[in-house]
Amino acid sequence: MKKISVIRKAHFNAAHRLHNPNWTDEKNKDVFGLCNNPNYHGHNYDLEVKVSGELDPETGYLIDMKLLKDIIKEKIELVFDHKNLNVEVPQFKNLNPTAENIAIVIYDILRKEIDEKYDIHIRLYETARNIVEYPY
Amino acid sequence: MKKISVIRKAHFNAAHRLHNPNWTDEKNKDVFGLCNNPNYHGHNYDLEVKVSGELDPETGYLIDMKLLKDIIKEKIELVFDHKNLNVEVPQFKNLNPTAENIAIVIYDILRKEIDEKYDIHIRLYETARNIVEYPY
Amino acid sequence: MKKISVIRKAHFNAAHRLHNPNWTDEKNKDVFGLCNNPNYHGHNYDLEVKVSGELDPETGYLIDMKLLKDIIKEKIELVFDHKNLNVEVPQFKNLNPTAENIAIVIYDILRKEIDEKYDIHIRLYETARNIVEYPY
Amino acid sequence: MKKISVIRKAHFNAAHRLHNPNWTDEKNKDVFGLCNNPNYHGHNYDLEVKVSGELDPETGYLIDMKLLKDIIKEKIELVFDHKNLNVEVPQFKNLNPTAENIAIVIYDILRKEIDEKYDIHIRLYETARNIVEYPY
Amino acid sequence: MKKISVIRKAHFNAAHRLHNPNWTDEKNKDVFGLCNNPNYHGHNYDLEVKVSGELDPETGYLIDMKLLKDIIKEKIELVFDHKNLNVEVPQFKNLNPTAENIAIVIYDILRKEIDEKYDIHIRLYETARNIVEYPY
Amino acid sequence: MKKISVIRKAHFNAAHRLHNPNWTDEKNKDVFGLCNNPNYHGHNYDLEVKVSGELDPETGYLIDMKLLKDIIKEKIELVFDHKNLNVEVPQFKNLNPTAENIAIVIYDILRKEIDEKYDIHIRLYETARNIVEYPY
Repeated sequence: MKKISVIRKAHFNAAHRLHNPNWTDEKNKDVFGLCNNPNYHGHNYDLEVKVSGELDPETGYLIDMKLLKDIIKEKIELVFDHKNLNVEVPQFKNLNPTAENIAIVIYDILRKEIDEKYDIHIRLYETARNIVEYPY
Repeated sequence: MKKISVIRKAHFNAAHRLHNPNWTDEKNKDVFGLCNNPNYHGHNYDLEVKVSGELDPETGYLIDMKLLKDIIKEKIELVFDHKNLNVEVPQFKNLNPTAENIAIVIYDILRKEIDEKYDIHIRLYETARNIVEYPY
Repeated sequence: MKKISVIRKAHFNAAHRLHNPNWTDEKNKDVFGLCNNPNYHGHNYDLEVKVSGELDPETGYLIDMKLLKDIIKEKIELVFDHKNLNVEVPQFKNLNPTAENIAIVIYDILRKEIDEKYDIHIRLYETARNIVEYPY
Repeated sequence: MKKISVIRKAHFNAAHRLHNPNWTDEKNKDVFGLCNNPNYHGHNYDLEVKVSGELDPETGYLIDMKLLKDIIKEKIELVFDHKNLNVEVPQFKNLNPTAENIAIVIYDILRKEIDEKYDIHIRLYETARNIVEYPY
Repeated sequence: MKKISVIRKAHFNAAHRLHNPNWTDEKNKDVFGLCNNPNYHGHNYDLEVKVSGELDPETGYLIDMKLLKDIIKEKIELVFDHKNLNVEVPQFKNLNPTAENIAIVIYDILRKEIDEKYDIHIRLYETARNIVEYPY
Repeated sequence: MKKISVIRKAHFNAAHRLHNPNWTDEKNKDVFGLCNNPNYHGHNYDLEVKVSGELDPETGYLIDMKLLKDIIKEKIELVFDHKNLNVEVPQFKNLNPTAENIAIVIYDILRKEIDEKYDIHIRLYETARNIVEYPY
């Protein structure tokens, strides 16, 4: 069987602030700088979801890209887009919405939605110059 | 004299919400949809500033691009980046921070900083698919 | 009133061939080269629709971008996407689907859908290196 | 010896349709949707060929990029560009030209042309949002 | 007759330094900074040539893009690519190779090669963030 | 512990020529072609530095991106930007500045600056179509 990967791109626009509630305000400002702004700032997040596994010889597909697109739309874009991540996305109630943690949360959500026979991998662009990949 | 244009790109990341305080909450939601989210959302704004005028034959420059870069950095990027536009940028206290109005505010700021002998023109990307140009 | 422009990006994937039925096969091959392939070839067309006019001070919008997006989706993307332009899009029954003519057809379609108080302008990418703009 | 990779980008424009001749028309339409259009549609395919191996200390090259460019031009671009993949590329006579299968066909062609001491890897963009990588 | 524009992209990689021989070394360093480095530095220049005029109804072309591509290849890319602009391109013997002047030189070369019935316009990217347009 | 990667993009513009001093001029011209031009040519190099390791649960960071950005700025951008690599960057006194060798030199410089607990990986774009990755 041939092992292959497909990648689907998506995006969402959201507000966030970086903050560790166990630290003083001073330490938060020191570590997170402008990203600690209590009034929030925001990003256009570009997301790439890579799915890997064995090619289905009957369809010539690894996975139906329309299905993958719909899963990402329903479980990620509709949940994160035009939201304040700290306030409105439950996973970040007690988790700092760094690009790293957003990528891990997205991975954890999609891992439950996509058949276990596939590996998945997340690439998240917070800006054109700052990117995160998970897992390693 | 040869008339020529130069364009300098810049960017900033900010939070905003669209809201007209003279309208009911219902009408705001109806007109601005997800963009009316009271908890804010955000964007990576990409900015292109075009400056037009007569070439200086001694330097071969229209304008010193380092100077233009520094003006944009000081007057726009430092003022808008990692900010909540509605709360922290005074021009939007009573002005809805649509992409159109942000472009006009940027134009008005830069118009005062750049010598009158030059024309200026703003292109602002709110997302990769939504762009504004001012003036017309 | 402030005159301003907004640009919305869209795309569609289509097959086409270049062919003038009034010419011999030889002349068609000579003029259109590989693009005359009778079995068709195809492109991912990227489309930019620019709309220009006076800013609405109440909304801070030139035009509701969701409305513009929906018009482009319904009148262009649904009609052109995953189609054979020569065979399935009526405007090209007797019109050669060059990038130039596709841009003009898109302009003519949208001109009827978008309020006359706005000017419109089309930018169409046939490839990353071949682009058309209409009107001039 | 230092192990390193180089990547060369190329592209081609082609028409295709997705279809499994062992299935009913109904099932084909159901599985492949718009991509099953019997009149074909098309794409600008962007191709990245990664070649990996040991650096040649005399040249400072892994492989001569002009050589790699010429192989890709002769064996892939001239064969696929401005073609109908289903009708004119023999490998797809009995193979569905999904992005996955196109990537595998390109890999198989290039594997014979590029010295065995190098590993090769294919990344194929069917659209800006749909990408395939082979091998896994 | 319908007036329309087409744009063709091209590129070349070249070395240059900015220097005015009528000035002292000190003034050159002061005005041109790092760009005055006597050992040269370089760029990947991206070029967009826009040609405007009346559509030919018989072909559906404004101008044959293959012809335009060949003119740009022969008159610009072969002359500028992998060259030291100051030393090897005659137009810059006594002209400072700023992005502005390179755009004007390209315009002047192409103006003689492209039929007068067409208008032409140059967009030159010196870097992703510094762009020049000529004419105004 | 969760293993994750972050990528930071940077760039520099430099001149170079490819040349092996142990070879005749003829062999150099034969192997390196236009890249052997004794007057140099140049590129806008785009650099991606990937850092991999274990997420710090207190910050939600793998590594402080501002720190990574500053290291790249000080150790790479300030050293390579607007320079003639052959003449002004000591590592290339006796090393041919191919894209492969530039990537290895950048890796070796950053390896000493970034904590050993992290893996690092370099992706260097010499042009939009020629890319190198190190290590393999």
